[in-house]
Amino acid sequence: MSETKHALVTGGAGFVGSHLVRALLADGWRVTAMDNLLTGDTGNLDGLDGNPAFDFVKHDVTEPYEGPWTLIANLACPASPPRYQADPIHTWETSVLGARNAALAAEKNGAMLFHTSTSEVYGDPDVHPQPESYWGHVNCNGVRSCYDEGKRAAETLLADFRRCRGLDVRMVRFFNTYGPAMDPEDGRVVTNMVLAALRGKDIPIYGDGSQTRSFQYVSDAIEAVMRFIRKPRAEVDAFFAAKKMSVPVLNIGNPGEFTISELAEIVLEYIPGTGSRTAHFPLPGDDPKRRRPDIGLAGELLGWKPEVPLREGLKKTIAYFAGKCGK
Amino acid sequence: MSETKHALVTGGAGFVGSHLVRALLADGWRVTAMDNLLTGDTGNLDGLDGNPAFDFVKHDVTEPYEGPWTLIANLACPASPPRYQADPIHTWETSVLGARNAALAAEKNGAMLFHTSTSEVYGDPDVHPQPESYWGHVNCNGVRSCYDEGKRAAETLLADFRRCRGLDVRMVRFFNTYGPAMDPEDGRVVTNMVLAALRGKDIPIYGDGSQTRSFQYVSDAIEAVMRFIRKPRAEVDAFFAAKKMSVPVLNIGNPGEFTISELAEIVLEYIPGTGSRTAHFPLPGDDPKRRRPDIGLAGELLGWKPEVPLREGLKKTIAYFAGKCGK
Repeated sequence: MSETKHALVTGGAGFVGSHLVRALLADGWRVTAMDNLLTGDTGNLDGLDGNPAFDFVKHDVTEPYEGPWTLIANLACPASPPRYQADPIHTWETSVLGARNAALAAEKNGAMLFHTSTSEVYGDPDVHPQPESYWGHVNCNGVRSCYDEGKRAAETLLADFRRCRGLDVRMVRFFNTYGPAMDPEDGRVVTNMVLAALRGKDIPIYGDGSQTRSFQYVSDAIEAVMRFIRKPRAEVDAFFAAKKMSVPVLNIGNPGEFTISELAEIVLEYIPGTGSRTAHFPLPGDDPKRRRPDIGLAGELLGWKPEVPLREGLKKTIAYFAGKCGK
Repeated sequence: MSETKHALVTGGAGFVGSHLVRALLADGWRVTAMDNLLTGDTGNLDGLDGNPAFDFVKHDVTEPYEGPWTLIANLACPASPPRYQADPIHTWETSVLGARNAALAAEKNGAMLFHTSTSEVYGDPDVHPQPESYWGHVNCNGVRSCYDEGKRAAETLLADFRRCRGLDVRMVRFFNTYGPAMDPEDGRVVTNMVLAALRGKDIPIYGDGSQTRSFQYVSDAIEAVMRFIRKPRAEVDAFFAAKKMSVPVLNIGNPGEFTISELAEIVLEYIPGTGSRTAHFPLPGDDPKRRRPDIGLAGELLGWKPEVPLREGLKKTIAYFAGKCGK
């Protein structure tokens, strides 16, 4: 009998987490989803209740936990500004204590630790696009720091768990990701535009709309994660050693750039007849950051690149929001 | 009867901590020194045993604690590369969990939290000198990150404890500091040079010795801390609000720069007759960082500037090492 593959997905009821739960189940894993349901939603796990390979645990990762998992996929953390700024101290704790609790649980059971970091570790970058070797440009005591620095400090700890204690740590830095199961309250640009259009309200555009963003459809992100998890450790170690990197960390995102105006046009095209139009407002003080991933390393190690065009991904995302929040 | 002033100094048996313990006692405080004695040394507290205003607690700040203090001065953390790299995970925990435990203990008792951060939060700076507003240039998953990022994440948390919960947090970023009570094993340049000369060994100079460093004598650092602690909260809050800073943080260091060769010459002048000479070696790969504090804010708020010239400070430091480690 082959070794039982049993994964824990923290943040398993969240946007990306719930997709990873389904992907792991489809790949033959037994899966435990863990979530404190602060921003996660058990609705994202609909249809899994009867699956004998699946179970759900309500638990906050800031508190220690342990279990028989062979993989811990640590995705728990509020990830959008209005969500992570609602309780900055708890956000910091989720990222920092959560990473430590995940590492201790993985170590205890000899599990692989897959950890999702973020492009926010690059902060307001002065290098474009950002390779994994870029150190970032981050304020350590501002109002966004609970997330940015919390995520950086998590990487720091996990890098040392790998270097000092040999834990099989694999990290990805997700760039902007969108798709079904997104939190309607996340305040992100895709969510805001789609919900405004569905509700017949004007789509707000800050500034002239010529600023660009990169958007990754969630299935592309999950495909990268599954390929990364499946790699034998020796191959991962050899790859990063050859790159003179002591920590396996990969950018996962879509480098394609779209202007905010283009995004609004596509949304309005796919949600016709609600009377919604674009409305321009002044740019806020904290001028939106531009980030674009260098995904060369992920391409080389995983033979991966994003496949879902923005129009296709938006269509599916709109269908999701229409079902969940539409009239 | 006036309110009892009772301070906890974490890292109280350490280099700077032990000086702060004595300064607070001299200022009329009751003082508890807390230390896990990993890099601290109770010898630094010699002569305080019989003082009824003083007590010592052996405790590791990574574990929660509480007590009746009206001030918690959080100085606990190994601070030199060989010390903080000996157990990177514990260093990270000391900084990160230590800051959280200090904040929780201070909050529980309505105490002021004075926290020592470090110039290492600026990393390998691309701005000289560094003002407090500079975001830094730091690697978040390298071999020094346990300290650099651990300290940044501590600032992050404490900034949010102040913004979100009103805790009276005051932080300083110490630049290179030296003086009596330094750890002979800290591997710092002043320590290495003085010990080499005292032992008649050659003083190693890496590169041509023209690279510069700034050194702050410990009594100057302590004077700044005492002035900062004594300030009424309203005055501190108004000062930083006027600077558009949501967190009270001050650079504390000596902006005077000396070359490594000058430093070696002074050491040899003050330790004659041991046959010690300078010996040149190639610069190591991680080329030493240059940092120089902008201390304008501390000068403005505290009416403070460093007073002890390098020659005078070195003379006292040499006397200390001669007594502790000399033949």
